Amino acid sequence: MSFKTDIEIAREAQKRPIQEIGAKLDIPTEHLLPFGHDKAKVSQEFVAQARAAKRGKLILVTAINPTPAGEGKTTTTVGLGDGLNAIGKKAAICIREASLGPNFGMKGGAAGGGMAQVVPMEDMNLHFTGDFHAITSAHNLLSAMIDNHIYWGNALDIDERRIVWRRVMDMNDRALRDMVVSLGGVSNGFPRQTGFDITVASEVMAILCLAADLDDLQRRLGDIVVAYTREKKAITCRDIGAEGAMTVLLKDAMQPNLVQTLENNPAFVHGGPFANIAHGCNSVVATQTALGLADYVVTEAGFGADLGAEKFFDIKCRKAGLAPSVAVIVATVRAMKMNGGVAKADLGSENVSAVEKGCPNLGRHIENVKGFGVPVVVAINHFHSDTEAEVQAVKDYVAEQGAEAILCRHWAEGSKGVTELATRVAELADADQAQFAPLYPDEMPLFDKIQTIARRIYRADDVLADDKIRAQLKEWEAAGYGNLPICMAKTQYSFTTDPTRRGAPTGHSVPVREVRLSAGAGFIVVICGEIMTMPGLPRKPAAESIRFNEEGLIEGLF
Amino acid sequence: MSFKTDIEIAREAQKRPIQEIGAKLDIPTEHLLPFGHDKAKVSQEFVAQARAAKRGKLILVTAINPTPAGEGKTTTTVGLGDGLNAIGKKAAICIREASLGPNFGMKGGAAGGGMAQVVPMEDMNLHFTGDFHAITSAHNLLSAMIDNHIYWGNALDIDERRIVWRRVMDMNDRALRDMVVSLGGVSNGFPRQTGFDITVASEVMAILCLAADLDDLQRRLGDIVVAYTREKKAITCRDIGAEGAMTVLLKDAMQPNLVQTLENNPAFVHGGPFANIAHGCNSVVATQTALGLADYVVTEAGFGADLGAEKFFDIKCRKAGLAPSVAVIVATVRAMKMNGGVAKADLGSENVSAVEKGCPNLGRHIENVKGFGVPVVVAINHFHSDTEAEVQAVKDYVAEQGAEAILCRHWAEGSKGVTELATRVAELADADQAQFAPLYPDEMPLFDKIQTIARRIYRADDVLADDKIRAQLKEWEAAGYGNLPICMAKTQYSFTTDPTRRGAPTGHSVPVREVRLSAGAGFIVVICGEIMTMPGLPRKPAAESIRFNEEGLIEGLF
Repeated sequence: MSFKTDIEIAREAQKRPIQEIGAKLDIPTEHLLPFGHDKAKVSQEFVAQARAAKRGKLILVTAINPTPAGEGKTTTTVGLGDGLNAIGKKAAICIREASLGPNFGMKGGAAGGGMAQVVPMEDMNLHFTGDFHAITSAHNLLSAMIDNHIYWGNALDIDERRIVWRRVMDMNDRALRDMVVSLGGVSNGFPRQTGFDITVASEVMAILCLAADLDDLQRRLGDIVVAYTREKKAITCRDIGAEGAMTVLLKDAMQPNLVQTLENNPAFVHGGPFANIAHGCNSVVATQTALGLADYVVTEAGFGADLGAEKFFDIKCRKAGLAPSVAVIVATVRAMKMNGGVAKADLGSENVSAVEKGCPNLGRHIENVKGFGVPVVVAINHFHSDTEAEVQAVKDYVAEQGAEAILCRHWAEGSKGVTELATRVAELADADQAQFAPLYPDEMPLFDKIQTIARRIYRADDVLADDKIRAQLKEWEAAGYGNLPICMAKTQYSFTTDPTRRGAPTGHSVPVREVRLSAGAGFIVVICGEIMTMPGLPRKPAAESIRFNEEGLIEGLF
Repeated sequence: MSFKTDIEIAREAQKRPIQEIGAKLDIPTEHLLPFGHDKAKVSQEFVAQARAAKRGKLILVTAINPTPAGEGKTTTTVGLGDGLNAIGKKAAICIREASLGPNFGMKGGAAGGGMAQVVPMEDMNLHFTGDFHAITSAHNLLSAMIDNHIYWGNALDIDERRIVWRRVMDMNDRALRDMVVSLGGVSNGFPRQTGFDITVASEVMAILCLAADLDDLQRRLGDIVVAYTREKKAITCRDIGAEGAMTVLLKDAMQPNLVQTLENNPAFVHGGPFANIAHGCNSVVATQTALGLADYVVTEAGFGADLGAEKFFDIKCRKAGLAPSVAVIVATVRAMKMNGGVAKADLGSENVSAVEKGCPNLGRHIENVKGFGVPVVVAINHFHSDTEAEVQAVKDYVAEQGAEAILCRHWAEGSKGVTELATRVAELADADQAQFAPLYPDEMPLFDKIQTIARRIYRADDVLADDKIRAQLKEWEAAGYGNLPICMAKTQYSFTTDPTRRGAPTGHSVPVREVRLSAGAGFIVVICGEIMTMPGLPRKPAAESIRFNEEGLIEGLF
């Protein structure tokens, strides 16, 4: 077992040139656009060709509701990808890119952990291949063009109070949340109140992650609703005339990034939308490219299965025509104990009854995911303090639910520790048992879709929404947006909207605070509770400790 | 002669893989960090080694005061570099990177023109290798940390009215010039007035372009003065604790970018500080790297010689220990005619007397540049409407000034059209005649330095500055900043501060409106007239026309 830190392990990685990694997926060198020696983008031309192949099986890694104990969803995604390769399968993984801004607040992190990581870690926590910067530029170009349109006469008759398109920056900067711009007189425009969100919250990010290709990207960008007139007529990005230039700015960002795991297996790392006000999965383009090149593609969805898997199925898979073959639900003994009421400080002691008491959280996720027609395997991500009796308790519980739980040691051992899971997942995928169907049909009324998610997934009694919200949904239906799926934004820590309610609660209701239209991304965001779209820095930000040490290594970032 | 557009020519370029271009300068493949197949960064390790060699001769390309007729300074820089290679010399060029934001207002442009260009043109007008995005991030991290410091108790006792560090964005967005941030209540901080500049105006940009290496970069970033206390004590970036993280963000951006000319010769394109509130030259690191690898390095400075060459000599060369061997002053017959009073519409007709009347502008630049101890050659950048008599008039005038003017046809013919200039420049450089010395010594009082520039370069009678400005300069001298050079910010169109006064005016004075301390970059900015640090978009922004056409080519950007 390794007790080195993630960054120590990552720095010792025996990376292969990215062309060799590409060759494992038969990507010709001329279609790999290198960024240094260990990162590359796959060319747009090759992506178009690869996407058409559709050879691979799609495996979703999701999890129980997150707890402070940590579940290791990305670690398991990486480990399973390595495990599949280790048992002789041609497999690739697809995960999200990291946001730069938050790294200066709290420490940044690995993609994965222990012996199951994607590298290069430093670059992935810094500018990587510039995708998020391109998204920031494209977003803010539209913002500048809106104010510029008003400055030069406002021919579209935009109501300056009803501009819904803000600006973005990939930085935790609370001072920019709420501001009055265009001060200083005639030459600076018309003063109005607005603000910045963090880049990952941009609708452009969600669009980039859902668009099939550059044409679809441009169409979706054009569809963004940026403002309303006094008569509440929607003004789109297309009305402003920004979608062409935004597409040009995003041409490289649309090409998926290829990197490698510690075991030199291919990993696509592309896109990173918020998992609350957006759908929280890597790009459709990356997933489809991987499915065209590999026999098994392991990907993950944000947060727990109630949010992440539901959106993965109901937004990403529905819209991209993807059909997952297997879902892996990651759980840990420690997280089961926390769900069973144990405090974080006491997680080190054996407590089988707490494990048993916490398991219903896992059980409900199993039932929910199966409800989408996708076979489930539970991965118990091993921690050194886990006892055999605790592990057995989880296995027994899962068996009672008609599924199988497999202990995995990829964190400590890499692919060697995850061959049993890999073998079982490959068997299930090859058996073609999945009969995937989304939770609700496109044509269901918007409010009914929300109720369906709340009742079937969260097991709430009802949805609480005042007349204004219901009327807004009706307005959007009248305007032709009724066929869009729902993107729920609620706490990830509970099935309910109360982050403190662990386990598998019932008898609760889901209050809707606000609804937002993401017409370009193609979903209706339903906000239940406080959602922060521009984080702040803590009292002692990580940035104060980040620097090059005397050996020229980055300190403080991890 | 070619009548294709620059972009048409650039798209037909027979580019060689960037590794081949690097090989021309003996850069090993492992030290070339590729960005796609036609761009690369030179590794920090190799740069450190290359800089020590100091083998090459440095050739500055500067110009007369710019006119709407266009002079072709970058075109001549590129052409001369190709010309030197064509006559068998090992030569490289060094130029600035383009700013992204302005391309969405007016059309972006080539680096060079006609048959004397640097490619890939699209990438160089878009995100290139991400340097400017990294600068934006580093700048705005410091901004966020300042507001965060105040939010958490303001232990440094920063006077919120005296924060001089703004935010930046690489976008023309006038709405962000002047704003009130931190609205919305307790959790968003203390409301205060501030704004955004465009990224190229960032002091971080100037610092990156003057820093010798990562250590020097970090030291300079730490020196930035960001605010003052109520007692007017300066608060630096180091006090905020941001310089380490900013350096980490800039580690890749500090590595110079290598691309190629249409004739497959090496071109370093790195950094792009404003030529008014900053010094307007490419990075010291790129220039020194090129000087370590090539026998001749052709570089350019922003605007005309009165601003660009003066800052190149007095800021960049002084601080980096560079000693230019030759200066090329670019002039055109058309620009001479405009200086002689001809309107732009009438430039097509022969007018020898107007050429003669305009030549004193050129003459004064020749005299000024010679005053720095650097031999001068004039390059007459040929335009198809130039007549022999007009060209001869320029040549005769220059000969009277004790210099030589050489007609160059690199725009139409590439290196073939510039062999005479290349041969003469190489001869002058090899003769080692230069006895470079900056205009004023470090220890001269700040106001005397301003007067020296105004009298000796602009030929003004005097400098007008009110007591407040003189007192500010004295304060900075007392604080230890008295040894810094001056960075003049005035109109580039005239030797005077009045943009309409062409030719070689005398009898004028230089009114100083404002002085600013760039303690990290290491100069005092002296502002004479209006300087815009955040441009706006025009009524019909170029962005509205930018898009991919049906052939997948970018339209509207050029």
